[in-house]
Amino acid sequence: MKALILTIGDELLIGQVLNTNAAFISDKLSGAGVEVVRQLTVGDEASEILRALREGYDALDAVLITGGLGPTHDDITKKALCTFFQTDLVSDPGVRQCIERFLAQRSQPWSDASEEQTLVPRGCTVILNHHGTAPGALFERGGKYVFAMPGVPYEMEYMMNDFIVPLLRSRAGGKTIVHRTLRTTGIPESVLSARLGNIEEMLGGARLAFLPSAGGVRLRISVVDADSGRAEARARAVEERIRAKAEEFIYGTGEEEIEEVVGRLLVERGLTIALAESFTGGLVSHRLTNVPGSSRYLLASVVAYSNDAKRAILGVPAELIKTQGAVSEEVAVAMAAGARTVSGASLGLSTTGIAGPSGGTPEKPVGLVWIGYADRERSFARRFTMGGERVRIKERASQSALELIRRTLLGLS
Amino acid sequence: MKALILTIGDELLIGQVLNTNAAFISDKLSGAGVEVVRQLTVGDEASEILRALREGYDALDAVLITGGLGPTHDDITKKALCTFFQTDLVSDPGVRQCIERFLAQRSQPWSDASEEQTLVPRGCTVILNHHGTAPGALFERGGKYVFAMPGVPYEMEYMMNDFIVPLLRSRAGGKTIVHRTLRTTGIPESVLSARLGNIEEMLGGARLAFLPSAGGVRLRISVVDADSGRAEARARAVEERIRAKAEEFIYGTGEEEIEEVVGRLLVERGLTIALAESFTGGLVSHRLTNVPGSSRYLLASVVAYSNDAKRAILGVPAELIKTQGAVSEEVAVAMAAGARTVSGASLGLSTTGIAGPSGGTPEKPVGLVWIGYADRERSFARRFTMGGERVRIKERASQSALELIRRTLLGLS
Repeated sequence: MKALILTIGDELLIGQVLNTNAAFISDKLSGAGVEVVRQLTVGDEASEILRALREGYDALDAVLITGGLGPTHDDITKKALCTFFQTDLVSDPGVRQCIERFLAQRSQPWSDASEEQTLVPRGCTVILNHHGTAPGALFERGGKYVFAMPGVPYEMEYMMNDFIVPLLRSRAGGKTIVHRTLRTTGIPESVLSARLGNIEEMLGGARLAFLPSAGGVRLRISVVDADSGRAEARARAVEERIRAKAEEFIYGTGEEEIEEVVGRLLVERGLTIALAESFTGGLVSHRLTNVPGSSRYLLASVVAYSNDAKRAILGVPAELIKTQGAVSEEVAVAMAAGARTVSGASLGLSTTGIAGPSGGTPEKPVGLVWIGYADRERSFARRFTMGGERVRIKERASQSALELIRRTLLGLS
Repeated sequence: MKALILTIGDELLIGQVLNTNAAFISDKLSGAGVEVVRQLTVGDEASEILRALREGYDALDAVLITGGLGPTHDDITKKALCTFFQTDLVSDPGVRQCIERFLAQRSQPWSDASEEQTLVPRGCTVILNHHGTAPGALFERGGKYVFAMPGVPYEMEYMMNDFIVPLLRSRAGGKTIVHRTLRTTGIPESVLSARLGNIEEMLGGARLAFLPSAGGVRLRISVVDADSGRAEARARAVEERIRAKAEEFIYGTGEEEIEEVVGRLLVERGLTIALAESFTGGLVSHRLTNVPGSSRYLLASVVAYSNDAKRAILGVPAELIKTQGAVSEEVAVAMAAGARTVSGASLGLSTTGIAGPSGGTPEKPVGLVWIGYADRERSFARRFTMGGERVRIKERASQSALELIRRTLLGLS
């Protein structure tokens, strides 16, 4: 079954709000075995809605519409549906009862707008709205479906979860889509692609997407299969083949962030950590503390932005900063060791670098980064060069710092 | 001028990622006087891309495409463009140079994928990519425009800002749309709306949008006028009327972040600052250091996550933590004072609170936050209660901390 998602609203076309509805509906349909082939957004304009409806209806099996059902939108979606299915609006007693109950619960009075809301296209199946006053509608004609839902996210979400997904799942004809995402970092998209080799062969009919972002490249495996168990098994088999070639760069799966992975490794090993950040300015620490329960392993973090602070709080010798410079291997190591000492943590991690836009020199350009590590037995620092602007360099460096801890804990580097 | 935005990517159709690109491009086009009439998303499938391109090209003046330009096998936009404009791919020397420089800066080797990236459709105008390796392309034919940009948000954003918006703005002709955004914080949308009073009267034909986010409510004034000078003047007049009613809550305009405003105030007054963060985990510090030149005023920041760290690094008396609790007025003040002392900064700012999801009690629930302030003459702390989840509470608290500094520096509280 193939579907079009049609979102309606001028506010989307001027970029005022993000289209979270399209993502939500896509996610739900995908899980129900319905393939979304297009998402289309048009304004509050009857001709555009009709054109889109015609196009989706002719080519595909289902059209899911959100928006344009509220009382302020001139009921443009309902009227368009009437035009399209050659019918008219009729007041529905079930909807009236539903709206009366909704308003009574909130001590709100009945109004002209409420009366308007009781109208639905004649001949549709009404989808009652228990979370708002605009009813939804379903037209089912010769194996094709058109759903209309309100644009308010939680009203739409309840209609999807309680009515539309169960209905479509039962009629989608069995196929399951399984997605599996592997998250990599520290390897550019092109190098990763080369490393995987003959991708078509590896996939055996599955699909693979490369999704790059500042933190790394995500690999998404998609498998369509009539049997859900077999779909899972095929996705797992592809994952194994990818892991065989790039295991060390894969830090997590699905929605898992590297800070969660690092947190889990620290808990498993009973270790604590302290940070000494210079140019990343607290970002590494912020990310680690986004994870619930991070107070179990993160003891402290010192953002030593000035050289005085590096000296006074972390005990980095002034002489070292003077001779080697604040952005150097030696200072990175001393900062990591200092973070350990001042906090009593098992591990120390440090960052020092030049985020720009100014402050670079030919020997030490903007984007030069040293990341330092210290534990009871050893200490070292790694050099990186990061491209992009200030905030981007901070983001990349924070990812590299977390990856350095991950690899070190796993004995990978 | 009317436009279609065409975003390409399977990851959008399964709802894995939000379509932030469509919103960004829509916002920029809207500001440049171009009307976006459709946003369409299709998968990595040549026939769908061609169909969409044909439809937008025939009916509208401009098609803006993002996605599908990367070096991996699922990137097919370039080939679709060649089919559509009946041309072929040719290696471009300017693009080659650009990629060489990009890779050299990052110490990455040239690869087959890089070679692939030098290819552009013959006859297009190349849009160089200084933030990645995939070039953009422009086809201009008989007053119609087709732009292809990478799907990586910051690469696309630079092409829009530096090349496409200036080009379209110069050719959109006629009407100007002026947007002016006032950024407020510390006042809920409904209270702000009530404070502004009769909004229609205040606007005199302009439009006003309330855009709430975690950091506060932005007010966007939009004026459409044939004369750009008059549009500017009308927008300014509305701004003045709004300021007369809510000045103290407006911390900035346009894209200005509160951390930039605070940075500017500190520089103007010749002051330095040090932070002591607990549950915000480095976020306040991260935000302040996102501003270029922040090393002039931010001396140090201590993320004292454990009570030991509060004691050992910031000198908060253990007794105080024991009797008052780590999340208390007294400890917030002691942390702010400690940050000043340990760093020698003029001002100290602290945060302590309960980010959850666990750790709350009836007296000190999740979302309870104390923000402390100290300078040479005085110290105090302010209590807040924040709603939402862990990361949201951190974000809200970081905004409140920066706002507290802003108001204090301006003598507003």
